[in-house]
Amino acid sequence: MTDRLRERGEQALLAAIRQLIPETAGVRVGPGDDAAVLAPLRAPLLLTTDAMVEGVHFRRPWLSPHALGRRAFEVSASDVAAMGGSVVGTLLAVAAPSRLPTRDLRALVAGVRDGARAAGGALVGGNLAAADVLSLTIAVLGTCPSRPVTRAGGRAGDQLFVTGTLGGAALGVRALARRSAGRDAAAAARCWRGPRARLRAGAVLARRRLATAMIDLSDGLLIDAERLCAASGVAGRIDADRLPVPAVLRTVPPTQARALALSGGEDYELLFAVPPARVAALRAARDALGCRVTHVGELRAGRGVAVTVAGQTVRARGPRGYDHFRPNRGASA
Amino acid sequence: MTDRLRERGEQALLAAIRQLIPETAGVRVGPGDDAAVLAPLRAPLLLTTDAMVEGVHFRRPWLSPHALGRRAFEVSASDVAAMGGSVVGTLLAVAAPSRLPTRDLRALVAGVRDGARAAGGALVGGNLAAADVLSLTIAVLGTCPSRPVTRAGGRAGDQLFVTGTLGGAALGVRALARRSAGRDAAAAARCWRGPRARLRAGAVLARRRLATAMIDLSDGLLIDAERLCAASGVAGRIDADRLPVPAVLRTVPPTQARALALSGGEDYELLFAVPPARVAALRAARDALGCRVTHVGELRAGRGVAVTVAGQTVRARGPRGYDHFRPNRGASA
Repeated sequence: MTDRLRERGEQALLAAIRQLIPETAGVRVGPGDDAAVLAPLRAPLLLTTDAMVEGVHFRRPWLSPHALGRRAFEVSASDVAAMGGSVVGTLLAVAAPSRLPTRDLRALVAGVRDGARAAGGALVGGNLAAADVLSLTIAVLGTCPSRPVTRAGGRAGDQLFVTGTLGGAALGVRALARRSAGRDAAAAARCWRGPRARLRAGAVLARRRLATAMIDLSDGLLIDAERLCAASGVAGRIDADRLPVPAVLRTVPPTQARALALSGGEDYELLFAVPPARVAALRAARDALGCRVTHVGELRAGRGVAVTVAGQTVRARGPRGYDHFRPNRGASA
Repeated sequence: MTDRLRERGEQALLAAIRQLIPETAGVRVGPGDDAAVLAPLRAPLLLTTDAMVEGVHFRRPWLSPHALGRRAFEVSASDVAAMGGSVVGTLLAVAAPSRLPTRDLRALVAGVRDGARAAGGALVGGNLAAADVLSLTIAVLGTCPSRPVTRAGGRAGDQLFVTGTLGGAALGVRALARRSAGRDAAAAARCWRGPRARLRAGAVLARRRLATAMIDLSDGLLIDAERLCAASGVAGRIDADRLPVPAVLRTVPPTQARALALSGGEDYELLFAVPPARVAALRAARDALGCRVTHVGELRAGRGVAVTVAGQTVRARGPRGYDHFRPNRGASA
C-alpha cells in the first residue's frame, strides 16, 4: 500500500525531510528548529518569492515530483539571476493534499534541494500544510557582490539582448495541455519542464558592468520588456526576426513560432540592456556567461515596446503575456 | 460594483500593492523589481516560512482581511522571536481566487505591512497567483545580534517558563467554528485573531542569556514541549496547575480549560528553559520582557514530557496538539 501523508504525522514527515537536507557550509542551524540560521554576509541581500499552484501553473501528470521541485526552485532563483546575484538559502512551503504519496513529497523536496545545491545555496527550511491542491511556494535569499542590476537602469541607446532561446516552454505547455504525442511534443515539454536559472550569466553581466538593466522572462518577452522599459523610463524596440528559438519551434509555422517567442512566457531567460560601448565586452564574455546571448533590439526615448518584422513596426504596446487573473485577455502577437 | 481581482491585471495589482509599501531604511530596492535588495547585515541571518490556507487554518468570515494579513505575519515572525531574533524583511506570497475583491487584497497586504513595520522590519516583496482558495505564505528574514536560542540547548534541571497565557486561541477557534455568540465567544475569538509575536521577550531572553532553549507555541504546549525536549535530549515535566490562562478560559470547566492550555495550540507564546542560576535574573528582567512569564515546569534527564496535576503524573508522552494530516488522531489531555 502506498504510504500517504495522512498516514504520517507532520512531525515525522518533517523529520524525514530533514534527513534529505545535508549539512552545508554557512548554514549554522538547518531545517528543524524554529528558523534556519545562516552566517552573516557582507554583501547586499536579495529576497524573492514565487509560487506554483496545481491546476494554475502545472498539472501533476506533466512532470515528476522531483522535476516539479527542481522547476519551482529554478523559477524562484531566476529572480536572483535577474539581479546579478547568487543564491544563499532557500525556503520551501508546501501545501499538499493528505492523499499525496509520501514518496512524492520526498521527491519534490529532493528536487528543490538539488536545485539549491547546484546553485551553490542550500534548502534551509520549510513548512508543510494541508490543502486540496498541491502548491509550492519558494523564497530565496541571495546576495550580490557588486551592485545589483535592477530593471530601472536602462537608457535610450542601450542594446537589448536575451540569453538562451525563447518560446520553447510555451510550446511545451501547449503540448502538455493538449496531451500531444511524438518526439516534437516531448522535446517541447522538456523546454517547459526544465528551465535553469541563468545565475552564472546574470552574475557575470552584473560583475562586469555589462548590463544596465535586467529582468527574467517569466510572463513573456513583450510584457517583461515593457516592465523593464517602464522601470527605466524608456521605450523599447524588439526585432522579431532576431529572436532565438529552439529547434523544436521550427516544427510550427513561423508566425506561430514568433508569437510563442514574443508572448509565450515561462522561458526564464534573461533580457538585459547593454550600452553600445559595452557590446564588444559582452561578446568577449561569451564563455564566462555559459550560454548564448542574442541581440534582439534596443532601448529608445519614449514609452512602450514596439515589435518590428522585416523592418516594419507590426505592433505597439498593449497587454501581452500571461496574466493570472485575466487569462483570456492576454493577446498574442 | 465590487472591483475584483479578475477585473485587474496582475501587473496593475502589483503596482497598487507597491503603493502600500513605504520606503524603509535598509531596503535598497523594495517591491516591484525581480528581487528586493537589503543592506548587508553583520549578524547571523534567520530564515523561516509559514503558510495559512483557507479552510485549513482559517475561514474568511472569522476575521477581516487586514487581521488575516497581520495574523499571518505574526505567526511567521513568532519563529524569529523563538530564536531570539528580530525581523529584517518580509515576503508575502498570496494565492487568491479571481473573485476576491481587490480591496480585500489591499487590506490583507496592509495587514502584513503593518505587522512587519511594527516589528521593525519591512514587507519587501511578494507574489500573487490565482488559486481556488485563499492562502498566504510568508517568509521572514531576521537577524540575531547574539547567538540564537535553538530548541536544542536545554539541560536537565532547567526550569520551563511560558510567556503570556495559553488556551485562549484554541477556545477562540472553537467559538468561531461553532459560530458561538456572546461576549465570551467574542473575547475568545480575539485571542485567536490577534496573536503578537513575542519578539521583544525573545530578544531579551537571548541577549541576556536567560534561555538555554526556546520554541514558539504553534501546535500546542505539549507537542511543542516534546519538540524542545527531543531536540535537547532531555525529558520535561509540565505542572498543569500552573498554566497561565486568559480570563475567558475561566468560562469553561477547569478540565476543559486545562486541555485547551495544554494542547490547544495557536497561542504563539514562547516556551523556554532557564538554568536555575538564571531564574532570579529572569524575574529581574520582567519589565524588559514586555509580558508576563510563568513557571510551568522543568527539564529532567530522560525522554518525553509528563504532565502533573496536584502533584500526580496524569499523562506521559504521546501524539498531542494539532497535526495537519491527522486531525482526528490528535488527542487532547
